[in-house]
Amino acid sequence: MTDLIAEKLEQVQGILDELDLDAWMVFVRESSHGGDAALSYIYDGAFTWQSALIVTRSGDRIAIVGKFDDGAVRAAGHWTEVIPYVQSIRDPLVATIRRLDPRRLALDFSVDDPAADGLTHGMYLLLIKYFVGTSYADRFVSADDVVGALRGRKSPNELARIETAIVTAQTIFDEVGKFAAPGKTEREIARFMQEAALQRGVGLAWSQPCPIVNTGPHSMIGHGVPSELQIEPGHILHIDFGVQQDGYCSDLQRCWYVPRAGEISPPEPVARAFEAVVNGISVAADLLKPGVEGWQVDRAAREVITSAGYPEYGHALGHHVGRVAHDGGGLLGPKWERYGKTPFRKAEPGNVFTLEPSIEDAGGCGCLGLEEMVVVTETGCRWLSDRQMTLPCLGGAR
Amino acid sequence: MTDLIAEKLEQVQGILDELDLDAWMVFVRESSHGGDAALSYIYDGAFTWQSALIVTRSGDRIAIVGKFDDGAVRAAGHWTEVIPYVQSIRDPLVATIRRLDPRRLALDFSVDDPAADGLTHGMYLLLIKYFVGTSYADRFVSADDVVGALRGRKSPNELARIETAIVTAQTIFDEVGKFAAPGKTEREIARFMQEAALQRGVGLAWSQPCPIVNTGPHSMIGHGVPSELQIEPGHILHIDFGVQQDGYCSDLQRCWYVPRAGEISPPEPVARAFEAVVNGISVAADLLKPGVEGWQVDRAAREVITSAGYPEYGHALGHHVGRVAHDGGGLLGPKWERYGKTPFRKAEPGNVFTLEPSIEDAGGCGCLGLEEMVVVTETGCRWLSDRQMTLPCLGGAR
Repeated sequence: MTDLIAEKLEQVQGILDELDLDAWMVFVRESSHGGDAALSYIYDGAFTWQSALIVTRSGDRIAIVGKFDDGAVRAAGHWTEVIPYVQSIRDPLVATIRRLDPRRLALDFSVDDPAADGLTHGMYLLLIKYFVGTSYADRFVSADDVVGALRGRKSPNELARIETAIVTAQTIFDEVGKFAAPGKTEREIARFMQEAALQRGVGLAWSQPCPIVNTGPHSMIGHGVPSELQIEPGHILHIDFGVQQDGYCSDLQRCWYVPRAGEISPPEPVARAFEAVVNGISVAADLLKPGVEGWQVDRAAREVITSAGYPEYGHALGHHVGRVAHDGGGLLGPKWERYGKTPFRKAEPGNVFTLEPSIEDAGGCGCLGLEEMVVVTETGCRWLSDRQMTLPCLGGAR
Repeated sequence: MTDLIAEKLEQVQGILDELDLDAWMVFVRESSHGGDAALSYIYDGAFTWQSALIVTRSGDRIAIVGKFDDGAVRAAGHWTEVIPYVQSIRDPLVATIRRLDPRRLALDFSVDDPAADGLTHGMYLLLIKYFVGTSYADRFVSADDVVGALRGRKSPNELARIETAIVTAQTIFDEVGKFAAPGKTEREIARFMQEAALQRGVGLAWSQPCPIVNTGPHSMIGHGVPSELQIEPGHILHIDFGVQQDGYCSDLQRCWYVPRAGEISPPEPVARAFEAVVNGISVAADLLKPGVEGWQVDRAAREVITSAGYPEYGHALGHHVGRVAHDGGGLLGPKWERYGKTPFRKAEPGNVFTLEPSIEDAGGCGCLGLEEMVVVTETGCRWLSDRQMTLPCLGGAR
C-alpha cells in the first residue's frame, strides 16, 4: 500500500490547509492491540513503544519513535525527519511541538465519529502530563474533520479497489443464490459464502458474523449470528455481506423470496415491501450530491418507507465504506443522539456510501432489506453496485 | 471460546472483590475497528453501536446494547440482564448506574498499561456528557488493576493453550534451523517461517514483521522488516518469533552462529556473549516468584549483562504473554519513564512472562538475544519453553 500512503499523506497537507489547522498528530503505542485506525493511512506497520507521527500544513512529516522502529520508519521513505528515543518520548516530543509551535494541534479523538477516535483516554492523559506547564495542552483539538476527510475522500486508486470488492461480493451473491434452497440453514448459507471468500483469497468485510443471514420471520435480525433455522416456503431470505479485498471493502444486502406451493411470484405484501425499499433507495440517490447533509438523504428515504405504511427502520440509511465496512465520517442517518453530529456532515465528491433502508417484517415473511453502494460525484452520485430491481424466487418455482 | 468467557467472568467478580471495586464497565462502539481488547475476555463478538457491559462485585452482569445486538448477547448466555436500546444509550445507561450506585466504577483507561487502555478519549468524553449533573463521573477510576489481573492470571485452560503455542513455535524454530544456510536472505527465512505457521493453520503472534530476522552486524535490529541481507560466515543469525494458536501466543528468540572457514565453534567473543545472555535468564528465573516487583527481576538480569562488560539492553527484560504477544499488566522492566508504573507491579501465580536479555553486538557478529517463557508458580517459576543452552553452528561446519 506504499503508493496509497504517499497519496494519503499528500492529501493530509491539503486538508490541514483547508481546515486552517497547523498540524495533525497520531500518537500511538502497542498499535497491534488495535489502536488508532488512522495510523494505517500514513504508516504501513505497527509501533510497540509510544510513537508520534506529525504532519504539518507546511509539509513537515516528523516521526518520533522508539529506537527499534527507527530503521523501519526511515525505510518507509515518507518521513522528512525521524527522531528515535530510548527511555522516554517526552523530551523529543515536547521539543518538536515547541519548534513547530502550532496554534492548534489536531489529535485523533472524537465524540461523534468512531473512525476518528483512535486516541485512548490513557494516551490523552499521558499527553496532558507531558505538556504540563506549557500552553500546548490548550491547543489540542479534535482531528475528526481531518480524519473524516482523509477516510472519506477516496482517491481513484481507493475507488478502484472498492469497485473490485463490490464485483467480488456480487459474484458470491450470484453463487449463493444458486446454492440456497428450502431445507438449507442460515448457518450453511453463511459457511458457503465464507468459503467462497476464502477460495478467492479475500477477507470478510467485518468480523463475525459476516454474512448476516436471515430466513423468515423468526430469524434474529440485525447483528445476530446465523442460526440453524431452515429456509422454508413463505420466507424471505435476506443476506448482508461484503468482502475486504486489497484493503478495501464492499457492503451489500440482497433478498430472495421462497415461494409456497402454487406461488409463482412473491405475494402482494412482500412485493409491495420490496417496491418501497427499492423506491427509498432511488429517492435517496436522486438527492445525494456534494453539499447535502446526511440527515436530508436519510429523511427522504425514511419517508418513502413510512408513507408506504411501514414502521421506520431502526438504523441509519447509509454509511461510508472504505477500509472498513462501517467507515467513519458523515452518516446518512437521522438526528438521533447516538449519531451525534455525524448526520450533519455534508457529502463530498469521492465519498462512498451505502443506501440501505429496510422493513423488518414484510407481510409476515421476514426482513426485507437491500443495500446498494454509490460514490458521490461533482454533481450527484453514481451507482457502484448493480442494483437489485427484482425479487427473485428461490428453489424450483419461479 | 465460550467456556473461557465463563471462566473469565467468574474471575472478574473475585478481582473486583479483592480490589474493593463495586463495578467494572466496558464501554465500546464499532468494536471491530480495534477498540477495547478487554472486551474479548467477556464477549465473543463485536458491537457496532455504543454498548456497555457491566460486571459487579455482587454478581450482576448487565449488557446495554443496540437492539440489533440484543439477540446475540442473550444467546451468549453469560448476561443476567440484557437491555436493548434504539435512539440513545444515555437513559438506560444512566438509569442502570443509578440503580447499581457503585462507589467506584472502573473503566478501561490506563496511563501505563496499553492492554488496559481500551476506552477512547472520545468515548470518555461521551460518558462525561451522559453523566453530567450526576455524581457518577467523579466515581470513574482506572480499571487497570482489574484488566491486568484478568489478563495476567492464566487459568489452566489458558496456560494449556499457551504451552501448545510454544510447542508449535519451537517446532518451527527446529525446522528453520535446518533450512537456514549461508546465502539465504533474512526475507527467505521469514517467509519460510510464515509458511510453516500457515501450513499448521496457526497465526503469527504479532503483526508485521513476524518473525524478526537478523543476520550479522548490519541487520536492522529491533522491529525492522526482514531484509535482503544474506546469511554469511561470521554472522549470528537471530530470530524473534511466535505463533497465535487457539487464541493464545508464544514469543521466543533463538540464535545460531555461522562459522567461518576453519571454525568449528563460535569464536570466544560470541560464546562469551551467549553465556552472559543465558546467565541473565537464569538469574532472572531464580528471582521470579509471587510478590517480587518487575524491576527487581529486570535489574538482576541487566547487571549480569553489564557486569560482563556489555552495554545494557535498550528494552525490558520481559513482558506478559497471553492473547497477544506483548500482553499488558506488569513488566519485568527498568524504571524508565515510558514504562510508567508497570515495572512496580508484583508478580502473581499464573503470570506468564518472557525473559529476553540481549546484546546488540556480540563480537562484531550481530545481535545475540534469547527469549524464553516461564509461568509464575506459588513458590517461584516454571520453564514453559525448552531453554536454548548451547549456540549451534549453522551450515556444514559444526
